[in-house]
Amino acid sequence: MTFAYDFDHDHGVAPRTLAALLGGKGANLAEMTSVLALPVPPGFTISTDACRRYLSTGWPEGLEAEVAGHLARLEQAMGRRLGDAVDPLLVSVRSGAERSMPGMMDTVLNLGLNDASVEGLAEQTGDDRFAYDSYRRFLQLYAKVVLGVEGGVLEGPFEAAKADLGVEEDAAVPAERLRSVVGELQEVVAAATGRAFPQDPAEQLRNAIEAVFSSWQSPRARAYRDREAIPHDLGTAVNVQAMVFGNRDERSGTGVGFTRDPATGAREPYGDFLVNAQGEDVVAGIRSTLHLSAIAERFPEVHGDLLAIFARLERHFRDMCDVEFTIEQGRLFVLQTRVGKRTGRAAVRIAVEMAGEPEIALTHAEAVARVDPTHVEGVLHPQFDEDDVVVATRGLGASPGAAVGRLALSAEHAVELHAAGERVVLVREETSPEDVHGMLAADGILTRRGGLVSHAAVVARGWGKPAVVGAERLQIGGGRLRIGEDEIAEGDVLSIDGTSGVVVLGAVRLSAAHPPEDLATLLAWADEIRAGRLGVRANADNGPDATNARAMGAEGIGLCRTEHMFLAEDRLPIVRRMILASRPDEEKEALEALREAQRADFLAILEAMDGLPVTVRLLDPPLHEFLPDIGQLALKEAREGLTDEEVALYRAARDWREQNPMLGTRGVRLAVVKPGLYEMQVRALLDAVAARHRAGGQPLVEVMIPFTISRAELALARSWVEEALAEQPDTARGSVSIGTMIETPRAALRAGEIAEMADFFSFGTNDLTQMTLGFSRDDAEARMMATYLQHDLIPANPFETVDVDGVGELVRLAVQRGRATNPALKLGICGEHGGDPRSIAFFAAAGLDYVSCSPFRVPVARLAAAQAILSLDGRPARED
Amino acid sequence: MTFAYDFDHDHGVAPRTLAALLGGKGANLAEMTSVLALPVPPGFTISTDACRRYLSTGWPEGLEAEVAGHLARLEQAMGRRLGDAVDPLLVSVRSGAERSMPGMMDTVLNLGLNDASVEGLAEQTGDDRFAYDSYRRFLQLYAKVVLGVEGGVLEGPFEAAKADLGVEEDAAVPAERLRSVVGELQEVVAAATGRAFPQDPAEQLRNAIEAVFSSWQSPRARAYRDREAIPHDLGTAVNVQAMVFGNRDERSGTGVGFTRDPATGAREPYGDFLVNAQGEDVVAGIRSTLHLSAIAERFPEVHGDLLAIFARLERHFRDMCDVEFTIEQGRLFVLQTRVGKRTGRAAVRIAVEMAGEPEIALTHAEAVARVDPTHVEGVLHPQFDEDDVVVATRGLGASPGAAVGRLALSAEHAVELHAAGERVVLVREETSPEDVHGMLAADGILTRRGGLVSHAAVVARGWGKPAVVGAERLQIGGGRLRIGEDEIAEGDVLSIDGTSGVVVLGAVRLSAAHPPEDLATLLAWADEIRAGRLGVRANADNGPDATNARAMGAEGIGLCRTEHMFLAEDRLPIVRRMILASRPDEEKEALEALREAQRADFLAILEAMDGLPVTVRLLDPPLHEFLPDIGQLALKEAREGLTDEEVALYRAARDWREQNPMLGTRGVRLAVVKPGLYEMQVRALLDAVAARHRAGGQPLVEVMIPFTISRAELALARSWVEEALAEQPDTARGSVSIGTMIETPRAALRAGEIAEMADFFSFGTNDLTQMTLGFSRDDAEARMMATYLQHDLIPANPFETVDVDGVGELVRLAVQRGRATNPALKLGICGEHGGDPRSIAFFAAAGLDYVSCSPFRVPVARLAAAQAILSLDGRPARED
Repeated sequence: MTFAYDFDHDHGVAPRTLAALLGGKGANLAEMTSVLALPVPPGFTISTDACRRYLSTGWPEGLEAEVAGHLARLEQAMGRRLGDAVDPLLVSVRSGAERSMPGMMDTVLNLGLNDASVEGLAEQTGDDRFAYDSYRRFLQLYAKVVLGVEGGVLEGPFEAAKADLGVEEDAAVPAERLRSVVGELQEVVAAATGRAFPQDPAEQLRNAIEAVFSSWQSPRARAYRDREAIPHDLGTAVNVQAMVFGNRDERSGTGVGFTRDPATGAREPYGDFLVNAQGEDVVAGIRSTLHLSAIAERFPEVHGDLLAIFARLERHFRDMCDVEFTIEQGRLFVLQTRVGKRTGRAAVRIAVEMAGEPEIALTHAEAVARVDPTHVEGVLHPQFDEDDVVVATRGLGASPGAAVGRLALSAEHAVELHAAGERVVLVREETSPEDVHGMLAADGILTRRGGLVSHAAVVARGWGKPAVVGAERLQIGGGRLRIGEDEIAEGDVLSIDGTSGVVVLGAVRLSAAHPPEDLATLLAWADEIRAGRLGVRANADNGPDATNARAMGAEGIGLCRTEHMFLAEDRLPIVRRMILASRPDEEKEALEALREAQRADFLAILEAMDGLPVTVRLLDPPLHEFLPDIGQLALKEAREGLTDEEVALYRAARDWREQNPMLGTRGVRLAVVKPGLYEMQVRALLDAVAARHRAGGQPLVEVMIPFTISRAELALARSWVEEALAEQPDTARGSVSIGTMIETPRAALRAGEIAEMADFFSFGTNDLTQMTLGFSRDDAEARMMATYLQHDLIPANPFETVDVDGVGELVRLAVQRGRATNPALKLGICGEHGGDPRSIAFFAAAGLDYVSCSPFRVPVARLAAAQAILSLDGRPARED
Repeated sequence: MTFAYDFDHDHGVAPRTLAALLGGKGANLAEMTSVLALPVPPGFTISTDACRRYLSTGWPEGLEAEVAGHLARLEQAMGRRLGDAVDPLLVSVRSGAERSMPGMMDTVLNLGLNDASVEGLAEQTGDDRFAYDSYRRFLQLYAKVVLGVEGGVLEGPFEAAKADLGVEEDAAVPAERLRSVVGELQEVVAAATGRAFPQDPAEQLRNAIEAVFSSWQSPRARAYRDREAIPHDLGTAVNVQAMVFGNRDERSGTGVGFTRDPATGAREPYGDFLVNAQGEDVVAGIRSTLHLSAIAERFPEVHGDLLAIFARLERHFRDMCDVEFTIEQGRLFVLQTRVGKRTGRAAVRIAVEMAGEPEIALTHAEAVARVDPTHVEGVLHPQFDEDDVVVATRGLGASPGAAVGRLALSAEHAVELHAAGERVVLVREETSPEDVHGMLAADGILTRRGGLVSHAAVVARGWGKPAVVGAERLQIGGGRLRIGEDEIAEGDVLSIDGTSGVVVLGAVRLSAAHPPEDLATLLAWADEIRAGRLGVRANADNGPDATNARAMGAEGIGLCRTEHMFLAEDRLPIVRRMILASRPDEEKEALEALREAQRADFLAILEAMDGLPVTVRLLDPPLHEFLPDIGQLALKEAREGLTDEEVALYRAARDWREQNPMLGTRGVRLAVVKPGLYEMQVRALLDAVAARHRAGGQPLVEVMIPFTISRAELALARSWVEEALAEQPDTARGSVSIGTMIETPRAALRAGEIAEMADFFSFGTNDLTQMTLGFSRDDAEARMMATYLQHDLIPANPFETVDVDGVGELVRLAVQRGRATNPALKLGICGEHGGDPRSIAFFAAAGLDYVSCSPFRVPVARLAAAQAILSLDGRPARED
């Protein structure tokens, strides 16, 4: 078994492709050494195989001998020996996993120093201060990382020395004093560990390697991998590399550079460096760094080489690179490189520009694969423009973007403030349809209760308004908002970040939302890739939303929720008249009035989406959603009595109340127990279709029956639609298809029989998730989701990213069974998952024809859909 | 293609086995004719094939010729011709499906009469009155059944004649007057149909056959088949048989007999007959019938023959038979026979006695297969003992048996009345845990809301108390119960039948519940058959219930719900203390107090079930179930203010409120967010196990984790149990296994991974049904179930009979996947379906190890389980 490889080992393939074996860092070190022949200090990489072996069954047999062999070759190459009392070799020991986990894992520098070799180092360099400072750094780092000694204790001796001497700069502590600091540190370590600091360099090395292996399992590393969806079983490689010293003298230095500007994407190198320092000093940010351009002045002899290396790396890796370099006494070394992290804005610009640069010439597919879809979301919304905000509390980031405005605790107050020209943040316990006018007036929405698919969240996302929900620490009352000890009054300013969930009492400066110009180009390339493979539609309920969705690139409407039309201020009284009707003629009159109103709604939507398909879902929610709150009426009855109308509404509200409305008399069930309702909606829709035809338009309507569980139900509902259709001219019939939502587990299981009655399926993955997992979305997200994620009981919030193992199996089953009985079946998804990149990848693999999401997520979905298609085709997918 | 067969056709096999082809009636007529050579009037049977062909594509080609051929042979055998003016043949045309559908389908008698042949009949019989009365009957019946003339109009002429003559008996109308009645009837028919009454006997016959075919699709026949779970695509056979005349004269008569007493099962023939009458007169019940024994006096010449035939039939069919016979001028004919319907009491007695009678010698398997499990339920509970009760309204029969008692509208009042020695029926809008003491005091429970698995229904069934739920027409208020116009006050008497759902205002006489002695024998035979194949356990939550369950034959407890222990009057305050605790020590103190209390509960249960397994489900419901009603507290706050304790409870109730409690923070989720809860329960349980061991007992405990959706959850919960177990002696560890409920669709889908952590699965089919179908049980049963069943949108109430196509697929998947990763996995079901015979058959086929149901359904389940095993093995299953 081979566990370790020299940087110049001949792997037979380009080492950069071996990140799984060598880690990203090791692979690139090998690439720079053996392919690019750059000035890389020599060393070797212990593979991830070794780490996995270590983590499952302990230190691998034979590894110690292999390490000794590689070390011997390194000593020979360098002409120095580890621990040598005359001319010692020092090495760094760094982790390096397949996927970058910056700052998460451990590193040891200057390894090989002991009481003897420190003297050799002093002798060789003629610099006692340098040698003892290096030993001090090594002692501190090794004790902390390898021996687990608490960091604070280890700072003590050096800080005390500086205080004694009345100096602030590390470099101002003389060699003699450093010598005593080193002695004190050894005592601290011996006291903390019960053993003397190990003097044997081989023991130091083995322990350091073990420490790096173990750091893979540290809680912070695990948490990071959870967040980034990196598997826990990859393990890390370990790189052992000869040290070079940027802290040797004033002719030395160290820095980090980017081949382009990682903030803007501009095509000019960017970076920071420090004279007479080691890498950790740059990262620690204690000393002010210099801009890369200062190298031309300080180190004219290497400046040209460095820029040439940057250009070479960028051409070779065909991407913006992040480079660590050190100058030791005027000689340049490259310590590592990797593809650099960048902002969303930069990612888009770099991808598009590199496609146009002849020396790199990314293909469109490569450019599309380079940009993280969540970056697209980021550049479309304003963000907090300050790093250090005072976080009052955090909720769930429910609708992205940031908002600053005056506090309104009621919808009415929000409308008033808005009318007065103020920006408003509406804060409620939770929102209901009665708050909608206030939400419309607000710039941002904040609630104490509710989860990512609560009313507040769904409505806010639909409108692209920032929202934070489920911020449980809010206390609302007496015209004031309290969070712990802090408190503001209505009219005071607060800020929310709907991406991170952060709430700030007071104003925060916002960055403007200006999508980079290159975004349109990139999305057009994405559209080429997914054309005919995976469509992107939007969920929109009215004409303006539909227009906006089309502008965002939506290729139709995947979900038009007709209940939102019922909730409009002028409609609700009619809906209630229908519910309260005691005679058929009263009911019919109310249904007719609704039909008139709905026709106009449909007309606006069909006009906005002319020539593109519009999926209209017939009424879905249980009727009690259109009735006033029972508790409020009970209180009013107790306090002051009810009007006759309220008495009737109270009775109806009690009659239609449900224990579990999610599983109640909704969707097609409501249509079965309330005949005439769907017929009214279908007639309104067909009238609108006819009107569009008369106007020379091209309406394309998909009538969607919600909440079916059996063929019989859909057959019945289909017969209603077909009866209404039979009265229409042929043109209308050609514009209308009929299908159903698949949103109960039974519907998914019985998809074979249901497909016999359906022209299309649309997966309602919100409800399907609720029922498959038994999670009421509002309750689960407010009360248990955080704990469940923290305990690894679920891999991700299943309302954000589809639960592939559970809900996903039902989706796959339904696709297979539905297509088996009806090969022409059209398949889409209109749940919240339609805008989530990881979910989109799943839906593409499951064979759906399109995804549908909020208008504001359409650009994200277009990019994610293209990447999903690239991945399915085995072409370059996103690399990160 | 052959469509018709003479009764004496040689089928090559015993005709009685050909009911699918010939219908039950036709098969038995052929058996009696060709095998038993009994005096059966000759005829032929048109097969169910012909009917199915007719129903799908219209009158089958060739059928008319076949009928003509068979008719010709019948005419030859009888020496008479249909429609002959001198000596006419008359025939009956009767339906006869594979499975009996008494009274549901059509029959025509005396076919072949017309204006000419009626004269021939008069001539031959020398009896004008008889001939014209036969013609009158034929006209009435044919016009109604075949021509669809409304029955009332057809009664007119004959009733007018009797009124004119001032007579009441049909026989008192003289021939001359009958002749004019016949003329008037023909006019009525011509007016109603626009055509003269058909005189051609062949046309009469073809039309009658078509009418019988069509009657298969009549609404009442469809409704009957829905109720009895008979497939709609079987079709009916049609029997054409030579008429004999029990109404010929005083030496004639007709009757229906049973070879044993169908009410008691006693081994003596039983029956009724009428002198000078046709079969319809016996069935119509207009004239008082005579007991069979009277035949010995009136017809001594045939009495012996009839009894011999009864004995012969019973030996031949090896079951109690129901026989229709006619005596024509002293000559005995058998018109049809079938296995007779019987009461539950009789079914049990007959099955057990026939096993002991050498000439019949049923095997135990045959005896077990003979008894309908629902019959067992009937004989275990008291029933309404009056046929004509005044039904005030109907609800859902939620817990079988009948109860009569005084009206109590509150739990408190029920307790008072009960304490005063009164029988009580508790009537509530719906029940909640706070009503439990009143439910315990009541003899029966009636609610306006809720379905078959509502709180009221589940608790009542658990205790074997009659209950009717979801009686929507109840109006409760002001100390009175109103149903439509009727009204009673608290303290007045009402009656309910928990089997049929009937509610009566006033007292109804009840039949006592005395299980027949033979039941124990029969159930013992059932136990032999299912031994080692399918166990039967009970759901029981306390010592007395467990004792009762064991007495009923339960082989363990499949579900002990620990939340019922939390709801006891002395526990609820402690539970609330735990919920309200603001400091860890307060919470711990409350948990300790609960542990003490639960230990005693567990001890009692383990003692009652010593040596048998007891599945203890750790706490399942969401915490708000232990808190007071929010609405009530809000009202009290508005009216009179709240105490400090109420303020705290109000806050907690709001905090723990859930939108959809069914999908909320329940089961293992609660344990995750409320650490210490399950640990407390497990420690209480293990203490009880240890105490039982010390007392020399044999406790066997299965710790069941509810509501899991993933391996990770169960692994976490399992670790809590195992930690507690590790502190116990080895004996305890050997007595405890750990498993989970499978009650979410995800758990079923992920059964493979979950089984790695489970010693057993128990399917919670109530919740699994709710989530798979998206039916909230309370809401769905109250609001839409009836409409859904009526429109054939679902085949059965899925909370009564498991939804095999949806929920059933998940159960089968979970069984396969669970056993694949853990072949030792024990599998049971503890939902309400565990007591439903059709569901039990499914569970047996799915490979479960046991079913568990309410103690009072255990005998039903034992029988149903045995029948399921017989059916799986291809041995005789129940015949009906």
